[in-house]
Amino acid sequence: MKNGIFISFEGPDGSGKTTQIERLAAFLKEQGYECLITREPGGTAISEAVRGILLDPAYKEMDYMTEAMLYASARAQLVAEVIRPALSEGKAVISDRFVDSSVVYQGIARGLGIDEVYRLNGFAIQGLMPSLTIHLDLSAEEGIRRKKNQAELDRLEQEDISFHAQVTEGYRTLAKLSPDRIHTIDATLPVEVIEERIRALVQEEFGK
Amino acid sequence: MKNGIFISFEGPDGSGKTTQIERLAAFLKEQGYECLITREPGGTAISEAVRGILLDPAYKEMDYMTEAMLYASARAQLVAEVIRPALSEGKAVISDRFVDSSVVYQGIARGLGIDEVYRLNGFAIQGLMPSLTIHLDLSAEEGIRRKKNQAELDRLEQEDISFHAQVTEGYRTLAKLSPDRIHTIDATLPVEVIEERIRALVQEEFGK
Repeated sequence: MKNGIFISFEGPDGSGKTTQIERLAAFLKEQGYECLITREPGGTAISEAVRGILLDPAYKEMDYMTEAMLYASARAQLVAEVIRPALSEGKAVISDRFVDSSVVYQGIARGLGIDEVYRLNGFAIQGLMPSLTIHLDLSAEEGIRRKKNQAELDRLEQEDISFHAQVTEGYRTLAKLSPDRIHTIDATLPVEVIEERIRALVQEEFGK
Repeated sequence: MKNGIFISFEGPDGSGKTTQIERLAAFLKEQGYECLITREPGGTAISEAVRGILLDPAYKEMDYMTEAMLYASARAQLVAEVIRPALSEGKAVISDRFVDSSVVYQGIARGLGIDEVYRLNGFAIQGLMPSLTIHLDLSAEEGIRRKKNQAELDRLEQEDISFHAQVTEGYRTLAKLSPDRIHTIDATLPVEVIEERIRALVQEEFGK
């Protein structure tokens, strides 16, 4: 069994994850990797069906634990069906959000607890964590400013500013708890500067 | 906060749970209880949406852990939205399947492990278990014979006989592990005999 490399991107909505993921994927392809980008929640037919429930604005009565468990369920399928097979084929897998998102959104912002949500996700990932996590740090105010031109907000995006502030602070807390894995970059830096820092971190971690 | 009573029914498909639940509900109403019957997976709008994913025959690639987590997610919402509020209003709640179903189907028949599935469900139920569980015991052969007139089988019902045999044996194993809570009744007995035994168990447990 070959070993691929597994990198996740974390940060609030609007922090530029999508742009940086595309640039990193292009870089890794130049380095000879076959590259797979996955997004959470989603990435498989079953996970997309679960995503449909999670993001439906009609389900305002959703219990916070149900929400955390549905994210973890979608993740379990993504790990089993897509991520593990890709890594065993030696691919580079870049995930747009992973376990840390659940810990920040449900564990911290929703108040379920950091340890509780990591434990819950242990069932989904069965020991598989990214070797490197890029955290794009963005204040709540800047995040909302970047998103406010969007016509329609999904269920989570409708949350108020204090929720967004908890997300920003939550990511900073996690980065302090896992300094070897989670690397924080200021998302307000120029795109090319962020791109360069990410390349340096990847080369340091994987020798590429 | 008043305390209702919480009873679950377990057993293979075709074991007569629905009939006995209706009869017990009628009995409890005579005893002055307001009675709520819930079914798993389902019982809330969100849980029904999750049920739709679980029972869709198209999702043959569903990972066993994903399956267990989706059942637990549907259960989390049912507990939070329906069962806890009903119990706090003093109602009698009868659940058609609960945690034991997951332990038997995913933990034993799918092989995820009894302890693993109980632990996973700990997130969903947050300490809430039935005071009394009625287990209607039925052999795999008899269960399939009773179901074979059905036109269309759902994803789980399409499993072969060895799966059904594991379910039957799994329930027997759980009944031995929790003899104070789980009470086994032979599902091939006459309906009225089963009904009478269930009433006796309920009266013994709740003094009604």
